[in-house]
Amino acid sequence: MNRQRIIPMLLITFLIILMSGSAFAQDPLPSWNDGPAKKAILEFVADVTNEKGGQYVEPAERIATFDNDGTLWVESPMYTQVLFAFERVKKLAPQHPEWKIQHPFKALLAGDMKTVGASGMKGLMEIVMATHSGMSAAEFDKEVSDWRAATKEPRFIRLYTELIYQPQLELLDYLRANGFKTVIVSGGGIAFMRTFTEKAYGIPPEQVVGSSVVAEFQVKDGEPVLVRQPKIDFINDKAGKPVGIYQHIGRRPILAFGNSDSDIQMIEYTMAGEGRRLGLFVHHTDAVREYAYDRKSHVGTLDKALDRAAAEGWIIVDMKKDWKEVFPGM
Amino acid sequence: MNRQRIIPMLLITFLIILMSGSAFAQDPLPSWNDGPAKKAILEFVADVTNEKGGQYVEPAERIATFDNDGTLWVESPMYTQVLFAFERVKKLAPQHPEWKIQHPFKALLAGDMKTVGASGMKGLMEIVMATHSGMSAAEFDKEVSDWRAATKEPRFIRLYTELIYQPQLELLDYLRANGFKTVIVSGGGIAFMRTFTEKAYGIPPEQVVGSSVVAEFQVKDGEPVLVRQPKIDFINDKAGKPVGIYQHIGRRPILAFGNSDSDIQMIEYTMAGEGRRLGLFVHHTDAVREYAYDRKSHVGTLDKALDRAAAEGWIIVDMKKDWKEVFPGM
Repeated sequence: MNRQRIIPMLLITFLIILMSGSAFAQDPLPSWNDGPAKKAILEFVADVTNEKGGQYVEPAERIATFDNDGTLWVESPMYTQVLFAFERVKKLAPQHPEWKIQHPFKALLAGDMKTVGASGMKGLMEIVMATHSGMSAAEFDKEVSDWRAATKEPRFIRLYTELIYQPQLELLDYLRANGFKTVIVSGGGIAFMRTFTEKAYGIPPEQVVGSSVVAEFQVKDGEPVLVRQPKIDFINDKAGKPVGIYQHIGRRPILAFGNSDSDIQMIEYTMAGEGRRLGLFVHHTDAVREYAYDRKSHVGTLDKALDRAAAEGWIIVDMKKDWKEVFPGM
Repeated sequence: MNRQRIIPMLLITFLIILMSGSAFAQDPLPSWNDGPAKKAILEFVADVTNEKGGQYVEPAERIATFDNDGTLWVESPMYTQVLFAFERVKKLAPQHPEWKIQHPFKALLAGDMKTVGASGMKGLMEIVMATHSGMSAAEFDKEVSDWRAATKEPRFIRLYTELIYQPQLELLDYLRANGFKTVIVSGGGIAFMRTFTEKAYGIPPEQVVGSSVVAEFQVKDGEPVLVRQPKIDFINDKAGKPVGIYQHIGRRPILAFGNSDSDIQMIEYTMAGEGRRLGLFVHHTDAVREYAYDRKSHVGTLDKALDRAAAEGWIIVDMKKDWKEVFPGM
């Protein structure tokens, strides 16, 4: 072979090696550090998509459910939706003079958060009902969207939809690329979440399961509208999560991802199915890049799940160790 | 050119004409006769998928909802799910000696359908609760599937899942091929329908909206199960249909297809949205190939919708005139 032919051939060989090398090294989860969590995810997806392995799962059955608050976006020091409700009380106060003397609105308007907190679940429900009902579905969507577009989270000075977790965005994409249907299963309001899940996570409204108020169909001035009623329809939390999955999705997930004890039943239900399964929890361990909280936190309490994880084979994702990046581009 | 070359060339030309002709004539709805209904469907799909026209709709917003009983499968002379409930009462009777004296079970077991009918909605609900609850979700699925596999409809001597409408199967396929998401929105039981919708219609469980009983998450002998409770969760009928769509799908359909006055609110809600919309009703006019019934029927009453159709621009699909074929391969 003469030199004139050797050089282009070497070049082509080099390019082939380079290309196959880059294809080989292509990491579907670049924001996940190498470690047991990433390994468990990659092995799980490889197993359920390998038609020749014994753990293959049909694409139709590849349902992956994710909690939202603390699993896909920030929830500390307070759930975003509660902040929305609080700010809406302030906005609506001029139309509700009775709130000046009525608990827990009086305390909230006076900025006395200790008293608001002491009003417990009952007080919180009164605030949610006053702010999440009495309007049409379209009006509520607009209220939420306008508030989100105008409100920045005070610590990171970013919109709440920018405080979503980059490693989870990669995981959602990776699962979908492998034939999974990704579903949100959250204690948060279904209508509140649906205003942003498609844009933020690529998850369409029909794949969002959450808590809801009763809605009523009415024809107002000849216009058919859905009016949100001040009455709880369903609380999609704790033991409600498997129920929400049953009623909305009608299939048992093969992967479920949460971050608190409120997700235990969803993970139990997922793991109890036949065949290959994966259950994961985000453990918030990073006070520098996000927050560090678990057993004693009022928001996103992670206590029993931590104790049971090893025995049950649940994966604890350590935010500080396992995530190279937390928020996109930060 | 010599004769030896002319013959193959003519043959090729003929084949090309034949193929392009057949491609041109490819009818996506072969079981639909040419007429106003088929024309309305084809024009609607052309309009909403034409990016350059003024009526384009993004694929994510292309939601098409279909009633089930009488719209996708046979409902006359009695809803299939009611037949299942009646037969299940007979099967369970030995375990329920109290039914021998308890209404409406006593009448049902004696074959006195007139008295059963006279027990009205209250009696029917008692029968549904007794037959659709008290077992796990998986046990109920198996009951329904086993019954369907073993039961033939008495007039056509076919499984109920073979008494689905061929023109509608073509329409569902055609819509999906044009980027639509097809959804069932039925008064029937969500869990009952989900046992067959994927195989029969290509509609996965998460795109089925129906009536439901309350479900409860329990851990039984260490096994997490969902237990169906004898309590109505939601009635997805009439004004409940837009509500079911809101809670499950979270988007307003752009096409809705029903067959009775129970679908009026779904069609109203669909048609009231902005942009191009299509609302349709099957009119059962074919006593020879299926059944003929409308205003006075107890099952699938079509009365007010017939009166309002012209003024509202709703399409009435005349089974006898518009459908070339009714059931697949019959």
